Amino acid sequence: MPALTSRRVLLKSRPVGLPKPSDFQVVDEPVPAPKDGELLCRTIYLSLDPYMRGRISGVKSYAKGVDPGDMMVGGTVSEVLESRHPDFKPGDVVQSSHGWQTHAVASGTSVRKLDPKLAPISTALGVLGMPGMTAYVGLLDIGQPKAGETVVVSAASGAVGAVVGQLAKLKGCRAVGIAGSKEKCDYVVGGLGFDACVNYKTESLVPALTAACPKGVDVYFENVGGEVLDAVVQLLNPFSRIPLCGLISQYNATGPVSGPSWRALLTNRVLVKGFIVSDHLDRMPAFLADCTAWVRDGKLRFREDIVDGLENAPTAFIGLLQGKNFGKLLVRVGADPTRR
Amino acid sequence: MPALTSRRVLLKSRPVGLPKPSDFQVVDEPVPAPKDGELLCRTIYLSLDPYMRGRISGVKSYAKGVDPGDMMVGGTVSEVLESRHPDFKPGDVVQSSHGWQTHAVASGTSVRKLDPKLAPISTALGVLGMPGMTAYVGLLDIGQPKAGETVVVSAASGAVGAVVGQLAKLKGCRAVGIAGSKEKCDYVVGGLGFDACVNYKTESLVPALTAACPKGVDVYFENVGGEVLDAVVQLLNPFSRIPLCGLISQYNATGPVSGPSWRALLTNRVLVKGFIVSDHLDRMPAFLADCTAWVRDGKLRFREDIVDGLENAPTAFIGLLQGKNFGKLLVRVGADPTRR
Repeated sequence: MPALTSRRVLLKSRPVGLPKPSDFQVVDEPVPAPKDGELLCRTIYLSLDPYMRGRISGVKSYAKGVDPGDMMVGGTVSEVLESRHPDFKPGDVVQSSHGWQTHAVASGTSVRKLDPKLAPISTALGVLGMPGMTAYVGLLDIGQPKAGETVVVSAASGAVGAVVGQLAKLKGCRAVGIAGSKEKCDYVVGGLGFDACVNYKTESLVPALTAACPKGVDVYFENVGGEVLDAVVQLLNPFSRIPLCGLISQYNATGPVSGPSWRALLTNRVLVKGFIVSDHLDRMPAFLADCTAWVRDGKLRFREDIVDGLENAPTAFIGLLQGKNFGKLLVRVGADPTRR
Repeated sequence: MPALTSRRVLLKSRPVGLPKPSDFQVVDEPVPAPKDGELLCRTIYLSLDPYMRGRISGVKSYAKGVDPGDMMVGGTVSEVLESRHPDFKPGDVVQSSHGWQTHAVASGTSVRKLDPKLAPISTALGVLGMPGMTAYVGLLDIGQPKAGETVVVSAASGAVGAVVGQLAKLKGCRAVGIAGSKEKCDYVVGGLGFDACVNYKTESLVPALTAACPKGVDVYFENVGGEVLDAVVQLLNPFSRIPLCGLISQYNATGPVSGPSWRALLTNRVLVKGFIVSDHLDRMPAFLADCTAWVRDGKLRFREDIVDGLENAPTAFIGLLQGKNFGKLLVRVGADPTRR
């Protein structure tokens, strides 16, 4: 096989505030031949997720950051082109974290083989991947929803939020979303089966949430922070729980950010728990068993927002941070052989 | 027995900001004779505690509030003067919640008999009472300290904080206090055995705490909020826990109060749990067994700040909200027959 080139997106400079396209750089670099135990892979889908803003921020966090000159990190679904590992053969589809590039050489032990008959392969980056598992662990293990309770989730039409609300419904709860457009809210209620959805851009949050949550809030799955958090905190019931998953509204902040007073957390004996899905990999078998069945049976629906071409990843990522995507944001880096 | 009069302190008007002596009113009212099953009690000690500021605020909370015209609520230690309950006789000492008054008639089922031989009776309002149990439940059940970890507690010389740090030491942790004067800090380290204490009034909090906590903070027992909370949040370790017990710095706030950004809670996967000791009464036997033995053995020390005379309760309570007390604040309402 002739030497291949991988097209890659590197971080060029640390963004200040909202990233700009010029903070990224596209380069072509040679890909080495796979050694024993390795695979040569072609990227089909690249996942774009809010956590990436943290990785490029230069602030010490739970995972190694991306420095200027480094390739952007990210989850991927790929086709195996060449295998020197006994468990894989060309044409296999695998899920991994190959980052923002068209080709990669990876150890066979670092990837997970997908069965395209079980579910569309792109779902391994969404409803049946890291975002879905984030929803599963955060809502079920931390939120501990009980039938009849009210679950509120922000960024409700996003990859995580959409699963949170549907799992809440499966557990017999009232599910209330918060999203940023009429189209998103209509989809959350009509398409996903939430009981209500508040448009944070056009509605006054506290009265709208009060109307949507007549019995208060028992679980608030937090993805956004800011004014939305300030509002929901006012509606918390005694002994409510807040799985703290993300704070996308403040990821681009350039100055100090404050949060709500903790008074309501005290008087209502609230639990707040920050979590990162990678700390909970022991839950993956249960998550995959439950959610694969629910997707198959149509009980867990999903929507994808697919952008074509690796070169468009920076712009799509910037849009994600502004809430411009509608559904799980993916970049189709190369053709999907399972879809026609 | 001739009809008795009880001197009582009522809330006269809702305080705005820090309460003033004129927000309270002293009255003398007749005490009815005890009926079958009841006791006539004479108050010896009245406990003054920060939670009382919430009760008089008019804001809906976890417990019924005190309205203008109502007697102030509070924990008490009393002597039984007359008993119409078979389990009690005159001269018995009981712990109850008779409020800010000199005499009370109470059901025999609403009080707990104390054994003056086990510990000074005043400790039933402090180290062996609600404040001690608050420390016990919050630190051990929510904070889950492990040997070698660092436990930080604010209001460290107070009734709760003093117990938190000593329990942390008993569990093999590094105990770091935060208090508001050199005398308090000296007592916390020299008298109670904490490893360090930061004076929040004279030291720059983040560098002082960084020096006192070279391995970061694993458990932060929160009593105060405000700038102290903002500082400690910057030092939290991954998977740290915050038992949220009180926010005394903001109880007198007259405008909106904000808290720290939740970013550090997310990236460090922090647990925050608001709690109220009365939700955890199932833990009282374990608390009393453990802490009574530790007090007896000198492993759990305590300091009391005793003010004489019920009429002085309002001023003492106002001082408590300003951090003027030094140790567990009590009002000696009547003579203590067990002390000479």
